[in-house]
Amino acid sequence: MINDTMNTSMNWIEQSAAKLNSEAGNRALDRQNSLTKPPGSLGQLEEMAVWLAERQSNDLPVVNKVWISVFAADHGVMDEQVSAFPQVVTGEMIKNFAAGGAAICVLAKSLDARLEVINLGVVNEPGELPGIVQEQIAPQTHNIAKGPAMTLEQYTQALHSGKRAAERAQAQQSELYIAGDMGIGNTTVSAALACAYLKMEPEQLVGPGTGLDADGVQRKAEVVKRALACNHANCTTPAGILQNLGGFEITAMTAAMIRSAQLGMPILVDGYIASTAALAAVRINPSTEGWLYFSHCSAEPGHAAILKALKANAVLNLGMRLGEASGAAIAVPLFQLACALHNNMATFSEAGVSEE
Amino acid sequence: MINDTMNTSMNWIEQSAAKLNSEAGNRALDRQNSLTKPPGSLGQLEEMAVWLAERQSNDLPVVNKVWISVFAADHGVMDEQVSAFPQVVTGEMIKNFAAGGAAICVLAKSLDARLEVINLGVVNEPGELPGIVQEQIAPQTHNIAKGPAMTLEQYTQALHSGKRAAERAQAQQSELYIAGDMGIGNTTVSAALACAYLKMEPEQLVGPGTGLDADGVQRKAEVVKRALACNHANCTTPAGILQNLGGFEITAMTAAMIRSAQLGMPILVDGYIASTAALAAVRINPSTEGWLYFSHCSAEPGHAAILKALKANAVLNLGMRLGEASGAAIAVPLFQLACALHNNMATFSEAGVSEE
Repeated sequence: MINDTMNTSMNWIEQSAAKLNSEAGNRALDRQNSLTKPPGSLGQLEEMAVWLAERQSNDLPVVNKVWISVFAADHGVMDEQVSAFPQVVTGEMIKNFAAGGAAICVLAKSLDARLEVINLGVVNEPGELPGIVQEQIAPQTHNIAKGPAMTLEQYTQALHSGKRAAERAQAQQSELYIAGDMGIGNTTVSAALACAYLKMEPEQLVGPGTGLDADGVQRKAEVVKRALACNHANCTTPAGILQNLGGFEITAMTAAMIRSAQLGMPILVDGYIASTAALAAVRINPSTEGWLYFSHCSAEPGHAAILKALKANAVLNLGMRLGEASGAAIAVPLFQLACALHNNMATFSEAGVSEE
Repeated sequence: MINDTMNTSMNWIEQSAAKLNSEAGNRALDRQNSLTKPPGSLGQLEEMAVWLAERQSNDLPVVNKVWISVFAADHGVMDEQVSAFPQVVTGEMIKNFAAGGAAICVLAKSLDARLEVINLGVVNEPGELPGIVQEQIAPQTHNIAKGPAMTLEQYTQALHSGKRAAERAQAQQSELYIAGDMGIGNTTVSAALACAYLKMEPEQLVGPGTGLDADGVQRKAEVVKRALACNHANCTTPAGILQNLGGFEITAMTAAMIRSAQLGMPILVDGYIASTAALAAVRINPSTEGWLYFSHCSAEPGHAAILKALKANAVLNLGMRLGEASGAAIAVPLFQLACALHNNMATFSEAGVSEE
């Protein structure tokens, strides 16, 4: 009975992403080639403006209203000592988000972006806090090194949290959607997911996260290996991989991206954790892919492999590895300047400038 | 007599750059390590904030007042058909700058940066225009493929234009200085300069510029080869190289960077042309180097070699190749966000977040 209800309520996840408007994209490309500069000389900024035009169905795209959802959750795999930071930090950081002291708070304020933090469940619950959406599923996932991360009910709850977050963003006419993460231990979970989706070995994808030494990285790789082995039988579908190896926050991010694409909101993808969620989203619902733009390549070594698998040409490569949507936020001004150039530069004929 | 006057008036160029404040830099580094994030997790943004702190003598650096000087000039080497665009474009683009239609105008407006365009001499003079500083030296340099680019008097005039531009920026308490270029044919001139400074072959440094095909690039390399050969005897000093192979705008940019460093204004270096000027500045006055931060790696293939020679770790790599200071302008918000994070994030103790 419960399963029947869930199957019904999860039908949304299969729906196609909104269609791209190739006419708007072609007109934007024509405009780029008419502006007073050698064609192509603004490099990736030209591609970014055209990409947005095609998705916003607007020859003159804009990125004034940016929505950032940061999903926070704890991970049972922390029993295996996979992080340089203690697990209590996730809950402490939720307080820091509420107080405006975290990196993403500073960035959102600087960018005049809307920031929403969703608490999906942490071990040391911070209690009610201003600006924090409380959608706790459980204090943490189960330890993936010993079994499935989530029950189907928990998985479905996490998906719905992400879906609703994208819907809130769309209700405010957001022009760009960003999903970020906070969860001590989640580079371990991301590595496990990426190994399962990309059929790669833990040694290729596990890295230092927040600051493990070489021994720590090796231990982490062994934990991922155990997680893959003990959940193997349940990892036969893209959704099965996410439910059994994922985290509440990564699952919510996955759903938020799928829903954002369905609602026609272009998505700027953050770093390693967000790209793992993007990978899960594309495997669960391939139509999501056309709505994803990748903001940066993280210092976490596994990120490059995920970007390569998704054929992504990330905007920035600054050695960032913080999460919280911080890398995507840093790339927002580049989209804004790309739009300003696209919309406001003079054409050759307007300016009376000779062409090639 | 003229030479005596010039020698006297050029003494400024040898003066040392302002001293860095390593105490402020160390305090900024300590602050970075106390902020609520894994140490180093903001990657290059941390380095940028500390770099600015050390140069602004300010533990909490700011980049609110940005000054952009764009130097425009024509090049005699255009007799050799080295560009996809006709030479008249330089003068036409000065009109476009005055009207606000060029890329750098849009960027400066978006960034609320002060933009000044200095006309050092073009073949089709646009006449008086609002906002254009008129400091014409000659309609163009001499053709470097046939002899020296500039007389000593012209070279000195160009240097003084650049010096005065930096002084105007400093008089307005600018916190970041950017020099940009406009000059059809100037990737040829930059390649010649870079070959002379780096002792590299034209084939290693010549590229398509605004859009030459393979035959055009080969012809351009032969032109650079002739320029190097016929000016060889005069290219025995860093200043001799710049006078004999340079352009008015590149010479002014070189002087502007040297002067900016002397006045203690941090410099954000634009692309291929600006980096060639930076290279000339460092060779003429090595103390300039500490004040240069490189904004982006251009699509022009020679740029990477110049950046490597200057041990530069450019912020962006977006395939831009426009000049006009546009790449540096795009990197400004990253400096601003780096400062916002540095100045406004909570520390671990302020936020009550546990450390490693």
